[in-house]
Amino acid sequence: MAHEHAAAQATAATAAFTVVEDGSVTTPAGFRAGGLHCGLKKTDRHDLGAILCEVPAAAAAVYTTNKVQAAPLKATRESLAAGGRLRAMLVNSGNANACTGKQGEADAYEMRAAFAEAAGVPQEQVAVASTGVIGELLKMDRVRSGIAQLPARLKAGAEGADDFCQAILTTDLVKKSVCVSLQAGGRTVHVAGAAKGSGMIHPNMATMLGFVTTDAPVGSEALQALLRQATDRTFNMITVDGDTSTNDMLVAMASGLAGGDELTPAHPDWEAFASALTHVCEILAKAIARDGEGATKLIEVRVSGAESDASAAAIAKTIVGSSLVKSAVFGTDANWGRIIAAAGRAGEPLDPDTVDIALGPILTLRDSQPVAFDEDAALAYLKGDTVEIIVDLKLGGGQATAWGCDLTYDYVRINAAYRT
Amino acid sequence: MAHEHAAAQATAATAAFTVVEDGSVTTPAGFRAGGLHCGLKKTDRHDLGAILCEVPAAAAAVYTTNKVQAAPLKATRESLAAGGRLRAMLVNSGNANACTGKQGEADAYEMRAAFAEAAGVPQEQVAVASTGVIGELLKMDRVRSGIAQLPARLKAGAEGADDFCQAILTTDLVKKSVCVSLQAGGRTVHVAGAAKGSGMIHPNMATMLGFVTTDAPVGSEALQALLRQATDRTFNMITVDGDTSTNDMLVAMASGLAGGDELTPAHPDWEAFASALTHVCEILAKAIARDGEGATKLIEVRVSGAESDASAAAIAKTIVGSSLVKSAVFGTDANWGRIIAAAGRAGEPLDPDTVDIALGPILTLRDSQPVAFDEDAALAYLKGDTVEIIVDLKLGGGQATAWGCDLTYDYVRINAAYRT
Repeated sequence: MAHEHAAAQATAATAAFTVVEDGSVTTPAGFRAGGLHCGLKKTDRHDLGAILCEVPAAAAAVYTTNKVQAAPLKATRESLAAGGRLRAMLVNSGNANACTGKQGEADAYEMRAAFAEAAGVPQEQVAVASTGVIGELLKMDRVRSGIAQLPARLKAGAEGADDFCQAILTTDLVKKSVCVSLQAGGRTVHVAGAAKGSGMIHPNMATMLGFVTTDAPVGSEALQALLRQATDRTFNMITVDGDTSTNDMLVAMASGLAGGDELTPAHPDWEAFASALTHVCEILAKAIARDGEGATKLIEVRVSGAESDASAAAIAKTIVGSSLVKSAVFGTDANWGRIIAAAGRAGEPLDPDTVDIALGPILTLRDSQPVAFDEDAALAYLKGDTVEIIVDLKLGGGQATAWGCDLTYDYVRINAAYRT
Repeated sequence: MAHEHAAAQATAATAAFTVVEDGSVTTPAGFRAGGLHCGLKKTDRHDLGAILCEVPAAAAAVYTTNKVQAAPLKATRESLAAGGRLRAMLVNSGNANACTGKQGEADAYEMRAAFAEAAGVPQEQVAVASTGVIGELLKMDRVRSGIAQLPARLKAGAEGADDFCQAILTTDLVKKSVCVSLQAGGRTVHVAGAAKGSGMIHPNMATMLGFVTTDAPVGSEALQALLRQATDRTFNMITVDGDTSTNDMLVAMASGLAGGDELTPAHPDWEAFASALTHVCEILAKAIARDGEGATKLIEVRVSGAESDASAAAIAKTIVGSSLVKSAVFGTDANWGRIIAAAGRAGEPLDPDTVDIALGPILTLRDSQPVAFDEDAALAYLKGDTVEIIVDLKLGGGQATAWGCDLTYDYVRINAAYRT
């Protein structure tokens, strides 16, 4: 736990890494990416994309905990199990290939094999992901023809990454991408990520779709442990609507092309690398929360003074997931009563007489009793595009942060007519 | 468990009880009720009410599991603990008297004492309940003057019950009341109930506010066990928004004035009485779900074939609580993909290849694979005011039913501006 805290603090402080302006999943050495429209979406937006690494990258992945899992997850698990290395990640949007039975499974494996052949890589080094409508078979003629053209479209640099980020979106309004660099083992190392996700967001193991690339020299096993740890603190701490998807998947590929010593938890630069990768995941996770279906605001809930970090996390997620809290934030209503009510139903230890609650700089509750505050100042604060809810339970040293978004008319509009 | 099933089946079938048209909490022998406007609500609607029994009634209660509990719950627990008998239940709406500290507690006890004095009953035989805004002190001058007038306003018959039902509402649109009669021990026995609740509805022990009256001769201990059992199957199976209130309370009073032998679980008529009381709770619970904030439809989710009844209940509640399922029902979208995704994230045993899902009479999924169905017929079905979602997991014999409502623009509108 001391280890995890160090990483968290490194992320919170200005850590030993720098954000690369205009950096993307193709910035780390060895990666190309791209996307195209093959015909799965009704619009002409891209719906098929891939990231290709010029060498077999050490790889790691985390998946949804939903008992109903989409077909591509099976193919991807099999690839990862074959040797912990990936050359490529292939993604389609517009169709989740979930609840599609044996045919869906065959389609996922066919996608993997077809891309492997087109790109000239082993099929057990290809990961496959899908996102979109559940329960419809893929139009495989379109997928096949898209895959055949895709390898020639993959590019280094910003353009390829942009096409890829475009290709993985569904109801998302914005592309989600980030890149940081750091010094490790005397070399410059990059860590980058791209993600999609807007609805059915309540990750419980991974998030929607997330893709991390790095040129750091790191083995699959260390990468897997780090990805799990970073996920628990970032993607698993966001919620849009409490619905955990059938398709959530986060995949990381490390090309090692930055060179230098292998990074392991024993290496003096490991913490810097861990905090950089955690930062990449946090930026993407917050971008998903802010781009939640219909959202107008990012909500950040910071809980401290809980009995443990896990307890703080459960309370933070309960607050950020409360429809009543989310509606109040949308309505710029400083309704701390709903915040303490949500905290109280989280099923975690809580002394009902010692709770402090602030909305950003405005203290509204001290020791569970209302504090007179300036309603105009609160209104002005709540009109901003980020709302911080800060809860101190004064029980112990546990702390956690969760992110979500407000509940709006547009969330209802988008989801009342998604399939039809 | 066999015992519980018998009661459930008696409720489902046309059981050994009859619904009393125009019956209410004052129909059982010995009860008067009433309400008035004392000034806690901004409108001129009633905001203070009471039910009074002419004899000390055997009493039972269940309370919210929220760790933050409103002051009146403390006063009520103390009354129940004093001897298991109640003469009266006093309720105010417009102010929840929650998160109000020592003053709030003093106010709850003062309400209890003041009503006891005004009505001429012992204060430890008075239960107190509050509902409304959290975190504001009661305007006690208004409460005091209301309480002084209240005993004179209590009436037998429909008028008094109607005033009481009015007085307990907040954002509710309709009053919720029911009465049944049955033969037990050679006498005619009545069981009636009234409830309120529209938002912050995700009961986990009791519901919002519920009040049950009966003239059956039943002891507090048997009544408590039965109330718990009925609550688990009815009030605890509804959700509007997943938010468990700080004020939930269900109180039952049995006057015994129907006469005859004491009803105990060993009595041959116990099952008939249990099914009648469970039915009263179910009708009220469904009325709360249907009157959920902004709701246009009642959603009933019936899960069968689960590993156990508890597992079926968890899955049914997860489905009925899913914002995506709720939005789809509002949008009359036969989106079974969201239903199976919700079932899969409930954390319960589920074979992803054997799930059947029907929307009322329309089968949409068999063995987890889509069934071609008539979209027009589905649309017509979904336009009705009750939507049944029927899920068969084909794993075991566990079954449960949960109730909720759709998620609409009006839910957001109501909750974006509740406090201000």
